[in-house]
This record gives sequence, C-alpha cells and structure tokens, in this order.
Amino acid sequence: MSKYTIGIDYGSLSGRAVVVDVKDGKQLSDCVMDYPHAVMSETLAATGAPLPADYALQDPRDYLDVLETIIPGAIKSAGIDPADIIGAGVDFTCGTMLPVRADGTPLCFEEKYRSNPHAYVKLWKHHAAQPYADRLNAIARERGETWLEKLGGKISCEWMFPKIWEILAEAPEIYAEADYFIEAGDWLTWQLTGKQTRGYGFAACKSIYMIDEGGYPSEDFFAALDERLRHVIRDKMDAPIVFTGEAAGYVSAKASAWLGLPEGAAVACPMPDAHTAAMSLGLMNDGDMCAIMGTSSCYMLISEKDTCTPGICGTLRDTLTPGFYGNEAGLCCVGDHFAWAKNNVVTADYIKEAEQRGISVLKLLIEKAAAQKVGQHGLIALNWFNGNRNILVDSSLSGMFVGLTLRTKPEDIMRALIEATAYGTRVIIENFRAHNVYVGKLIAAGGIARKDPFTMQVYADILNMDINISESTQAPALAGAVQAASAAGEERGGYATLREAMQAMSAGCDKVYHPIPENVEMYNKLYAEYVKLHDYFGRGGNDVMKTLRAIASQAE
Amino acid sequence: MSKYTIGIDYGSLSGRAVVVDVKDGKQLSDCVMDYPHAVMSETLAATGAPLPADYALQDPRDYLDVLETIIPGAIKSAGIDPADIIGAGVDFTCGTMLPVRADGTPLCFEEKYRSNPHAYVKLWKHHAAQPYADRLNAIARERGETWLEKLGGKISCEWMFPKIWEILAEAPEIYAEADYFIEAGDWLTWQLTGKQTRGYGFAACKSIYMIDEGGYPSEDFFAALDERLRHVIRDKMDAPIVFTGEAAGYVSAKASAWLGLPEGAAVACPMPDAHTAAMSLGLMNDGDMCAIMGTSSCYMLISEKDTCTPGICGTLRDTLTPGFYGNEAGLCCVGDHFAWAKNNVVTADYIKEAEQRGISVLKLLIEKAAAQKVGQHGLIALNWFNGNRNILVDSSLSGMFVGLTLRTKPEDIMRALIEATAYGTRVIIENFRAHNVYVGKLIAAGGIARKDPFTMQVYADILNMDINISESTQAPALAGAVQAASAAGEERGGYATLREAMQAMSAGCDKVYHPIPENVEMYNKLYAEYVKLHDYFGRGGNDVMKTLRAIASQAE
Repeated sequence: MSKYTIGIDYGSLSGRAVVVDVKDGKQLSDCVMDYPHAVMSETLAATGAPLPADYALQDPRDYLDVLETIIPGAIKSAGIDPADIIGAGVDFTCGTMLPVRADGTPLCFEEKYRSNPHAYVKLWKHHAAQPYADRLNAIARERGETWLEKLGGKISCEWMFPKIWEILAEAPEIYAEADYFIEAGDWLTWQLTGKQTRGYGFAACKSIYMIDEGGYPSEDFFAALDERLRHVIRDKMDAPIVFTGEAAGYVSAKASAWLGLPEGAAVACPMPDAHTAAMSLGLMNDGDMCAIMGTSSCYMLISEKDTCTPGICGTLRDTLTPGFYGNEAGLCCVGDHFAWAKNNVVTADYIKEAEQRGISVLKLLIEKAAAQKVGQHGLIALNWFNGNRNILVDSSLSGMFVGLTLRTKPEDIMRALIEATAYGTRVIIENFRAHNVYVGKLIAAGGIARKDPFTMQVYADILNMDINISESTQAPALAGAVQAASAAGEERGGYATLREAMQAMSAGCDKVYHPIPENVEMYNKLYAEYVKLHDYFGRGGNDVMKTLRAIASQAE
Repeated sequence: MSKYTIGIDYGSLSGRAVVVDVKDGKQLSDCVMDYPHAVMSETLAATGAPLPADYALQDPRDYLDVLETIIPGAIKSAGIDPADIIGAGVDFTCGTMLPVRADGTPLCFEEKYRSNPHAYVKLWKHHAAQPYADRLNAIARERGETWLEKLGGKISCEWMFPKIWEILAEAPEIYAEADYFIEAGDWLTWQLTGKQTRGYGFAACKSIYMIDEGGYPSEDFFAALDERLRHVIRDKMDAPIVFTGEAAGYVSAKASAWLGLPEGAAVACPMPDAHTAAMSLGLMNDGDMCAIMGTSSCYMLISEKDTCTPGICGTLRDTLTPGFYGNEAGLCCVGDHFAWAKNNVVTADYIKEAEQRGISVLKLLIEKAAAQKVGQHGLIALNWFNGNRNILVDSSLSGMFVGLTLRTKPEDIMRALIEATAYGTRVIIENFRAHNVYVGKLIAAGGIARKDPFTMQVYADILNMDINISESTQAPALAGAVQAASAAGEERGGYATLREAMQAMSAGCDKVYHPIPENVEMYNKLYAEYVKLHDYFGRGGNDVMKTLRAIASQAE
C-alpha cells in the first residue's frame, strides 16, 4: 500500500503544500495560498502606520491562516486516505525570525504589542539591521572570532543576531518580554509538534551555530556587543538542535485535530528553503551546484573540501547533502528586479498591447527583450536593488544603470536587469573557482528556471555553462517530502536514511540550455565592464550608494 | 501709426510666428505648427527604412509647410493690415544643416535622393558624426589650430564640418551633387529673400568662422581632414556673411505672393535660436546670463572679457549683445529627459490616475516628485541621455542612475532627472567661475521656466542663485521681431540700432525663485556626489559608456 509525505514550503509571499508518493517522489497534489498581508515594507497593516526604510515584516497569523488552508487542501486534492500520510517536512525562508512567548505565542498577537513593528516577523529581507551587522562584524574582527572567516568574513544584516540586537536597541520592551527569538521555520514546525526545536540548517547558517567549534558564539562575544546580550542564547534561544533528515517531533493531537494530519506522523527537521534543493534536485557529487531562481536566487554547491571562500555565507559540514561541505551563496533580488521593472518601467502602449494580447506585461517585455541581439541595448545594470548578499555582503548597496539614451526602451531595462543577475551569478562562480572550489554541474529550479527560456539562455551564455533544468516544478516542497520520508523511517513506510530517500524521490532534469558561442564571446566583453562597475561601486572606489542611502534616511 | 515685425522661431519639433508691435515689443498674435514628420530617428519617413543609431533627421518640406501656415495665421490672428509689417526675422536651431542645389532646392526633394538619409536635414542632435568630430579634433590639435582653444578645445559632432565630413565619407554622391551645405536658418531666410546669405551667428558658432582671425579655417586644415575637403568653403559654403541686427535682404516678390508679407519688407540676419535670448531678454551688463529651457537648454552669458573657458562652445565677439563677448553653453537634453521618463517610467496606476484627474502623466509625476524632501529618493542621475555638450563635449556619453532600490518609484526617477539637469547647469557655471568669468544675474525663459515652478525652485536651490523668470512666453520669436525692427531701420518705422530696438522691445521679468537655505545645504552634499560621478564616467575614469555604445552599434 502506498505511503505519502507532505512537503510544506513557505516562501516570501506564499505557502505551499504538496502530497508526494514516498515510492518515487511523484507529486500528487499542490495547494498554494498567498499571505494575506504579503510583505509589509511601507506600512504596518494593523495600524496603517508608516514603516522606516528597509523594513520587511510579516504577520505570523498569515502563516497559520495559510497552513490551515493548504494542508487540508493538498490532502483533499490528492484524493488519498490521510491515514497513509507518514510525515511532513517544512522548509522556510531563512533569517526570517520573530519574538515569541514560552508557549510559542508571537508577541504581535498580544493587543499591547500589535502596533509595535518589532513584535512582528522580520522577513529575511528586512535590512534595517544593517548598522548592527556592521558593528557586529567590526567587533568580531577585532576580537579575532574564528568563525568569522568560516562564514565569509562578514555577517549579513539578514541574520539572526543583527535583528535581535536591533530589537534590543530600538524596542527594549520587546526584547525583555520575548521568551524566545526563533526562526519562523522552527516556529511553524513547533506548531505541528507542540515541542520547540531548532533546525541545524537555520542555526548553522543564520545563527552562527558552529558544529565543529562547540555551538553558538561565546557569551563574551555577545557581551562585547552589548552586556545585555551576554546570555541571549541561554535566555532567548536555547532549545534542542535537530539535524537534517531527523525527526523534529511528531504531529500533536492538537495539530492533528486542526489540520487533519494523522497524530504521531513524523515531522522532519525544518530546513532553510535554499538547502532543500540539494536533496530534491539530487546533488550527489563534488562540484554539483543548484540554483533556485525566484524572487531571489539561492545557489547551493556541495564540495568535498572544507574551503573558506571570502564573501560566501558559509561553508558548513552536512548542511546540504550529508557527507559534503555545503556552500551557500545567492542573489538577494532576482525576480524582484523583474517585477520592479514591469511595474515601473513601461509605456502606456505596452500596457495596452499586453492587455489586447491577453498576456502579462512581464511576458511582453521579455518577448521584446528576447528579440534583441547581445549588447544591442547598450546598457549595464548593477543588480543590487535589494543590496548584495554575495560576494560583497553589503545590503547598503543599491542598483545602477549606465548607458541610457533617449532611445532606451522598457525592454532594454528589463533585459539589462536579467543580464545583471546572470553577471552577479558569474561573479559568485568565478569567486569559488578563484579559491579552488570546484564548480561542475549546474541544476536550476524555481519559477524562472521553468517558465522563462530566454532568461535561462542568457544565463547559459553569460556563465558559459550548460544549465540543466530540474523537472520538479516545486523543488523546495518536494524536499520537505523527501526529508519527511527519512524522518518517518523504514518502520513507518519511509526510508532508513536520508540518502536512500533522496535516491528514490529526488527529481531529474528534462531540459538543458547550452551556451551559444557567439553570445558567450560578446558577453565576455560586457562582463568585464560589469566587473569594473561592481568593484568600483561595491568595493569602496565610490561610496555614493551608502552616502545616498544615509541622506535618504535623514530626509525621511 | 503702428508698425509691426514678425518673429519666426523654428525649434526642434515645431515652427512659430509672432506678430509684435515695434513700439513696445508687445506680442499681438502667435501661430504654431508641429513639423509633420517631427524628428526622424528610427526610420526615414519617405521609405520606412530603418536609420542607424544616433540619427536625427528632418524633412525640409516640413519647414515650408509650416511657414505657409504660420505666417498668414499670425497676421490674420493679429488683425493688422499686412502693409504695416516692416520686417521679419528668423531664428533656428543651430547646427541643423542640409545639402542643396545652387537655387536652394534641397537634394532630398529630388526623386533619386529621397531614399538617401544624407540628402535630408541633419538636425542639431544628429550624433552619428561623432567619429568625424573625434578625428577633426585630433587633427586640429595636432596641427595646433589656434581657433581650437577659443572654441573650448573640442568641436562637437553637432557642428557643420563633422556632418559634412560624414556625408563625404558615407554618401560621396550627395557630397558631389550638393552645391551648398547650409544651416537650415540661412536656408529659410533665403526662401524669404530669394538671395543666399550666411548669418554671422551660425557661422561663428557652428562653422568655425573666426572674425578676428580672417574667417573660416584654412584650406590646408580641411585638406588634412580629407584632400577632397580642401575647397569645401569655396565650393560648398561661400555666400555673403551678414551680421546681427543687419538685414539679410528683403521679402521677394515670390515670397510676398506665397506668404502675404509686403514685398520689400526687411528680413533680418537669421540667428541661432539660443542667441536670440540675449536680445529678447535684455542681457545688458557684464555677467548677465540667460537660460532658455526646453527640449534642451541653452545658456548665454555676456562678458566684458575675452576669456577662453575650457569645454564651452565658444567665446565670440558680438554674437550676442553687441559690445560684449558671448559665451554659449548648454545641456543638450533637458525636457527630452523628462519626456523619456514620463513615456517609459510609469506605472499602470499612475496612467489611470492622470486620466481620471484629467492631467498629463508628466504633471502627475512632477506633482509627486515635488512632494518629496531633498535627497529622499536616494538617487543620482547623470543627465547625458543625449550626450554632453558642456563641459565634457562628448556625445558618446550616456545616462546613468545610481541608488535604485525596490522602493524606487517613477516620480523618484523623474525628480532625479530634473535635479541632474540642474547639477549639470551648476557644473557649467562653476566652470565659468573657475576660469574668472563673472556670472551675475540669471534670467530664465522657455517652456520649463514658465510652466514648471517645482523645477525652477530645484534649479534655484541647486545653483544657490536667484532665478528671474522672463515674462516673455516666446523669447526666441520675440527676438526675431526685435532683430527685424533693427534690420528695417528708422526710415521704415523701426530703429536705427539693434541696441535701441532691444531697449524698447525686450521683455521684463515677472517672477523670481529664491534659493531655500536648507535645500541648498542638502543639495551641496548631493552635488559633490554628482561631480564625482560626472568626472569618473565623463573624464576617463571608466570609459564604459563609450564601450557600451561601440558594442551596441556593432550589434545593430
């Protein structure tokens, strides 16, 4: 008799559940729902009050509202007996965190804190903690903290501790009242099991939990930031760590009644959304790299060597495929760039044309962009509209265009942004190679990889690499299901090891984009120009981006 | 009994005629008509054939069609007796040129040349002759031509000889068949008088006619460019030079019958559109500067000293107010920037909002931009979408934005472009001052000066100068009328001298924008950042703009 697991994937704008056959990884159903309040970056929904610059908040009630829709929805749509579900696994955006009570209640659920932005979920791309990240990095460097270099030499403001420090400094009452600061992925898992745990992946990648060095940073380090942070781990974060492929717990009676999952089904260790791809896409050999391309892009590379690459978020043992060192890199703004362009850079005629043809403006712009020759638009963009995650690790950077003329059209801007994200990817790959980390096979998944052949061809041409497209339409959610099959174990009808689960269930590739030699040649020239601008604006040649940001935040 | 003159103003997109009372400069009527084919920059209207990059052509038949509408229209609308018209004066965009037969027939009127782009009018902003300008400058520098420094050290591709050389090199049959290459302003005057002349202003400013050095450059210089150009002046440009305030001729019988002007009425020496402002706005004292702000902006500064300022088009005796040295500077793209932005950088919601409120998208964007504080948008732009006329004199430069984020809105882009044109103006003024040329009073005219208070306040704040707005709504056309009153002379009911005509007829100012001290302070900081970017991209720190342009023209 068939057994099933559920993969639960929480992205930046929506949550999704898929029901998967444990035998072969085949997906039976899919249910997705947008967060009702999406991302709050301009105003706080509860009060309508404006938010400062660089804020990106979410309401955790949205997560619950979505969960109670998508779990029953996916089960119903799969047409299976819920009793055959042997496990569930969550993946979540990473660095997305919230303050909660001892029983898991978010502080923002309490009437007295609903108007306080610091009581809400700070989404990964909440960048207002940059000043705290800067000071944290300076202090860590000064103290010679050994983990700093391992993590790429710089902690991003997207990580846990800059955000906690921001709360302490700017809303000390929230800091005082919070019993825990927790990754949203751990929190959602807690809602299923009734028991708090901490996923190793989140802890290792965003909370400086160094498995080879005894865990979190020392109390002296935290005290050097602020004496009140000395016991932050003991007082605000202490909970059992669970590892990739293990069970974080089992579905509680309460969750079973609420969501219709069998009580006692395994709940896998939750994973950062990007990590999941290593499993669902089947990264098995040294140098295998996958790209999950959507709102932002995450790159996961597995490596036999423990090499520390400057500007990369982390080289961490066992966070991806067990037995390899995992290298995580990424662009913190990809689809978001394209959405910005289609929303803001368009002509009245194009809006009409798209309407008449019944296609989206984005599709129309990409179609027009695709009709051009390489270099024809005369533009180069820097893809830093949301800062730079790698390899500069600086969220105070911003976007740039050069080469504009009166003939510049919206499709030129769109194409330049697409190319810029590919150049940014090449910077990351060349940085690996320059530090003797082998990059071999590239597998792409995510919305852009499957839906946008033009963009994928541009990537193949700019990277001068074959790009293999995973047949999985929902790689992250599939991985949750793979993890759940491992967490459930053989006795429940799952697998004895994570590796076995991966071998049986991970997705293959159904398309390859090959580089076109004449495009490669032209793009090599343009990439050289991109690198010059990247270094000038990103490495201190001209700090105008920081100056403008400082002036803008004064003006507001 | 009242006497009248007609000012005829030919801009980049339309022609206009005004009837003016000679007594006090009062404007009685105004008739304007767009050129039917506007500017041909993408395709040649006659054939639909695509044009290369950087082309900007016009059809001279449009000039005639406009003339035969606006002259009778203006006379009729003034309700005067045509017999009381004592003169007419033309002003025209400068550097706008065409090849013609000995009788003045444009080559493009001939069937065999109607499909040849080089047979048409090359508008001032036709920039495809840049390679010829570059070579001309290099050769002039090598030969130590004394006029080079006087003209700012660099000839722009908008001038006469790069365009003639382009025709010789790329369409030698047109070069051979042309009896004359002529400024369109001279050509239009010829249509009125039946007699070819050359206006001193055009010759001095765009054809290197140096009154203190014996006229045009030497034949050896032209031969050094190309042996076939040795006799270009003798063979293709030789006609009597007429000076500011003089009559170029008198209305011919043919023109009288065609347009309804009295035969024998004076036709003034035609003027470059920008020069006219010195007279119509009443520049009378050392350091008086006027700004004509529209599609592009021209700055005219009169100076007692004959100072050569690097990067400025020319410091030439008597081209503006007689008795002073005239300094001509400008931004070759101002309103064109704003038009680009409102056409290309806009949201569907804004288009709807403008429609519902019955205002233009441009007005809506400027309204939203005006609601911001200085620096709030976090952007800096380089205003080089059409190259740079001063002080870098390089049409291969292009536009740039830095500071973009996902929160960047269309009004931010619009405001950044408005500010960039003001920063560009400040660069010009600071360059004058750095070379000991006094800049005192600033008088602004043109569409933007009268219609856009927000933009004018930004200019006052960025320049930290009072900006006086001329009450004239059509400064260039008024100047044509002033010139005509001088050309007609006292015996016909005009004036004995140009200065007298100016004193009686030039326009006053009816509004002043004062700098706001706190804005000045913020803009000083932002201007410092603009200058850094201006110098980096404009003075060889990074030649990416040229590289991108070269790659783009290869790709096309």
